[in-house]
Amino acid sequence: MVRPFVLQLVGYKNSGKTTFTNKLINQLTACGLKVVTIKHHGHGGKPSVVEETDSAQHMKSGAIASIVEGDGRILLQIDDMEWSLQKKIEMLSVVDPDIILVEGYKYESYEKVVFIRDHDDLHLLQELKYIELVIFKDKMDVDFPYPSFHREDPQAIQWLVDYLETQ
Amino acid sequence: MVRPFVLQLVGYKNSGKTTFTNKLINQLTACGLKVVTIKHHGHGGKPSVVEETDSAQHMKSGAIASIVEGDGRILLQIDDMEWSLQKKIEMLSVVDPDIILVEGYKYESYEKVVFIRDHDDLHLLQELKYIELVIFKDKMDVDFPYPSFHREDPQAIQWLVDYLETQ
Repeated sequence: MVRPFVLQLVGYKNSGKTTFTNKLINQLTACGLKVVTIKHHGHGGKPSVVEETDSAQHMKSGAIASIVEGDGRILLQIDDMEWSLQKKIEMLSVVDPDIILVEGYKYESYEKVVFIRDHDDLHLLQELKYIELVIFKDKMDVDFPYPSFHREDPQAIQWLVDYLETQ
Repeated sequence: MVRPFVLQLVGYKNSGKTTFTNKLINQLTACGLKVVTIKHHGHGGKPSVVEETDSAQHMKSGAIASIVEGDGRILLQIDDMEWSLQKKIEMLSVVDPDIILVEGYKYESYEKVVFIRDHDDLHLLQELKYIELVIFKDKMDVDFPYPSFHREDPQAIQWLVDYLETQ
């Protein structure tokens, strides 16, 4: 496998991305792979921070970034900065990951798992590039032009594990 | 000023570091400087994360690091990794700071402000290197071999602003 291998998981809200991603992380980790994740918070505004930390206080006082570390956990917060996905991938290279799972950023050019809820979402299969796998919510009378699984089919995760091994 | 300039703020608990650091960030930011901070969580265990985030969930599922971004805020969490102070400083170079304020890591070799609560803390002035300023809690019948101010004396912050300008 090319390391790190970047795999995107894209689809609309409630398409099952989050649950699936956690199952996938679990399985890949069980296979001994080092997994990291990148997620776009979407239209939900800024991701929350723990307000009582000194780090959060430093940001309120005007710091543009802050690192707090304890007992092997490092938290880095940066405000008012727009980063490309590429920049975030570079940032994560410090932990030397095997796999970088990216939720969102659907128009980026990495291999993708696309989550389809219903017929209304089918346009994604026309619009997006580098699709490798389709995960659907309800059984659909559609022949997907890609390998596809129901989102609760455990074979979906296994297919991805096998796929990643050949990359 | 050499950029980024690293300044350490060291001293025992309740010596006034946190309040002073926030005032200093405020003043330096008002002077147009880009400030970032690094803090050691001490013996308090791991710094808290917002548990309900997908990012925290990814870590529980086995991811070793996670970035979440929204509305210009980036949060990066890394677990089970020991980083040197130097590595953290390198990490923060991505935001191109003017000043890096470091709380803790007292035996590192950067210029320091030392916070002294009482006579019991005076040994720090013998042990630590690169001391530039002493901030004391109670008036003490001691001639400090460094510039010194009471922790609530506003001249302390001004002294540091002037000092940083000449570095």
